[in-house]
Amino acid sequence: MDDADPTLHEAGELEALRRFLPLLPAGAVTELGPGDDAAVVRAPDGRFVVTTDTMLEGADFRLGWSSWHDLGWKAVATNLIDVAAMGASPTSLVVALAVASSTRVSALEAFASGLADAVAAMAPDCGVVGGDLGTAPHATVAVTAFGDLGGRAPVLRSGARPADAVWCVGGLGLAATGLRMLFAQAQDEAAVPVASAAERLRAGAGGRAVAAQLAPVTPIAAGALLAELGATAMLDVSDGLALDAARVARASGVRIALERAGVEAAAADALALGASLEAALHGGEDHALLFTLPAGTAPPVELAGHPVHRLGTVEPLAEGEPPGVTLDDGPVEPRGWDPYRASA
Amino acid sequence: MDDADPTLHEAGELEALRRFLPLLPAGAVTELGPGDDAAVVRAPDGRFVVTTDTMLEGADFRLGWSSWHDLGWKAVATNLIDVAAMGASPTSLVVALAVASSTRVSALEAFASGLADAVAAMAPDCGVVGGDLGTAPHATVAVTAFGDLGGRAPVLRSGARPADAVWCVGGLGLAATGLRMLFAQAQDEAAVPVASAAERLRAGAGGRAVAAQLAPVTPIAAGALLAELGATAMLDVSDGLALDAARVARASGVRIALERAGVEAAAADALALGASLEAALHGGEDHALLFTLPAGTAPPVELAGHPVHRLGTVEPLAEGEPPGVTLDDGPVEPRGWDPYRASA
Repeated sequence: MDDADPTLHEAGELEALRRFLPLLPAGAVTELGPGDDAAVVRAPDGRFVVTTDTMLEGADFRLGWSSWHDLGWKAVATNLIDVAAMGASPTSLVVALAVASSTRVSALEAFASGLADAVAAMAPDCGVVGGDLGTAPHATVAVTAFGDLGGRAPVLRSGARPADAVWCVGGLGLAATGLRMLFAQAQDEAAVPVASAAERLRAGAGGRAVAAQLAPVTPIAAGALLAELGATAMLDVSDGLALDAARVARASGVRIALERAGVEAAAADALALGASLEAALHGGEDHALLFTLPAGTAPPVELAGHPVHRLGTVEPLAEGEPPGVTLDDGPVEPRGWDPYRASA
Repeated sequence: MDDADPTLHEAGELEALRRFLPLLPAGAVTELGPGDDAAVVRAPDGRFVVTTDTMLEGADFRLGWSSWHDLGWKAVATNLIDVAAMGASPTSLVVALAVASSTRVSALEAFASGLADAVAAMAPDCGVVGGDLGTAPHATVAVTAFGDLGGRAPVLRSGARPADAVWCVGGLGLAATGLRMLFAQAQDEAAVPVASAAERLRAGAGGRAVAAQLAPVTPIAAGALLAELGATAMLDVSDGLALDAARVARASGVRIALERAGVEAAAADALALGASLEAALHGGEDHALLFTLPAGTAPPVELAGHPVHRLGTVEPLAEGEPPGVTLDDGPVEPRGWDPYRASA
C-alpha cells in the first residue's frame, strides 16, 4: 500500500471524502453544502434552472486521453454552458462520481481540482454543493447544474423570429478536430489510447484542438449577458452547428440561413489546422452558444473572452416549406448524433 | 426487428423520447419541462433543496431481480426521501439513464411508468422535469431531486438536543431481510439472478420484504409534516439504524440511547419473517426517517401511511465521552456501509 496515495478501497469513503470535499468551491448562494441528506441553495429569482448530463467512460471519454483533472473541468464546462444557454447565471452543481475502487485517492483529488479550476475560470460564483461517490467498473460522472435567471424570462430555442440575425460566441469545429487528431494519432493498433501520444499532441501545433476536446473553455458568462442584450433564442452547440441550428429552426418555425463566410470565420482556428467546413457544420462538442438577436442589435465583438461571429439570418418559411437550415441558400442536412446508434 | 418493440438502437433517440417523455409526470411548480437546454422550476421559498444519487447495475441493483418499473420506482422513492429528510416537500427531479442500446423501448417505457407511479403514490405534486439518455454496458440511473422548504429552516442532523425523544417513521430491517432472501433463494450456483425465483419470493409470505428491497414505499410526505411539528434533527435511514443514528449523534454532539423495545416494534415486520435484531440495527436501505422531537411533543401514531415508533432518547455526553449510540445502555458499534470497500 502506498501510504501517501492509497486506493479508494484502501482509504475507504470517509478518508476519501476528507481529502476530496475541501477542494470543492463553496459558491456564493450556497446555504448548506455537502454533509447532510441534501444541500440547500438560494434561488434569488424564485425559480431555478436545472440541467443534467452523464459522461461515461468509453462512450464519452477515455482515461488514456483525459486526465482526472480534465474530467472534472469538462464536467463543469459542458454542464454550466447548458445553464448559460437559458440566459441564466450558474449558481451551483452536484456531482455523482462512480469509479473502480482500485482508483487512487489522488485521482479523486485531481478530479476535484478540475471542478474547482473550471469553476474559478468560467463561473467563479458557482459552488459544488453536493454529490455521491460510488464504484463502477467503468467510470461514470453524472452532473446536475443549476442557475438563476435574475428576473428574466428563459431564452428558449423557440424564440427566433424572421429577420433576426444569427450569431455565435465561441469557436466551431475545434473539438471535433481535436477528437479526430486523437483517434488518428493517439491510439495503438488495438485502438487502445496512448497517453504519451495524446500529451504530445496537446503540446504541439494542434494543441488548442485537443484541449478543446478534452478540457474545453466554454463561454458560460456570455449566457446571462446575451439574455440581457435581448437574445430571442439561444442554445448550446453540442451536437454540431447544422443539427443544433435545425433544432432552433424547428422549435421556432423558421429557416436558419447560414452564410459560409460567417461560419468560416467562427471556425477559423479549426480551418487553420486543416479541418474542413464539415467539421464546423457537423462536428460536436464545441459548446459555443448559438443565438439570435433582433436585426439592429449588435453584440460586442467578444463576450466572456470568446469571439462573437455573425453566422446568418432567420428567414420566414415559404408556404408549405418545412423548418430547416441552409448554407448560402443550399440545404444543409443535419447529421444527427444519436447515442443509441453510435454503438450497437 | 420487432416493429412494436424495437431496441433503442433500432428506434433511435428521437423515437425513444417520443414514447418516453409523455409518460413522465409534469409537476405542480414546473415552469419549463424537458426539451430545451435546461428546465425551469419555481422555488416558492426562494431556496431549493437538492440531493443526487446514482444507482449502478451490479453494485446497487440486478436486472434479474429488479424490473425496469421497479428501478424507476426505487429511483423516486430513495431520492425524494432525502429531500423529505431535510423537512422539504419534493417538487421535481431530473433523471439520467444509460443502458445498453440493445435494450427495448418497452423497458424505457416501463422505467418511465415506474417513475410516474412512484410519484403518484408518494409525492403527487412532483414532476420529472429533465434528463439525459445515453448508452452504457451496465445500466446507470442518476437522479437529482429537488424540494421546497416552505419558509422553514432545513432540519439538519446536528439539531438533536439532550432530552429530545428519538423516533422513526417507517419500518426497519425489512429491506435487508428482502435482500437476504433474494441472495439465498433467487440466484443459481454461479450467483446469477433467477428472475422466476425472485418473482415467486415476491408473491410469497416474505413478499413485503422483497418489495421493500426492490420497490420501497418511503414516508416522503412525512418530512415536511415533521418539520412543521418541530423536529430538531432528521435523516433518512439508508445505511442501517446504528450507523445513521451515529451520524446524528456525532453531528449533534450527543448520545443516542436506543431502547430495544422501541427498535423491535419498528422492526416488527422483519422480525415476524425471522429476521434478527441485527437486521433492524445494521440492515441498510430501509429509507425510514429517523427524527428527534422535544420531550413532550408526540407525533401521530401514523404519518403518510407509515407507522411511527419511539426508539429512545437523546442523552447528554459525559465529560470526555465521544458521541455514540447505545441500546438499553450497551454500546452499539455502527457497521459502516462503505461503497469503496464493498467491492475490490
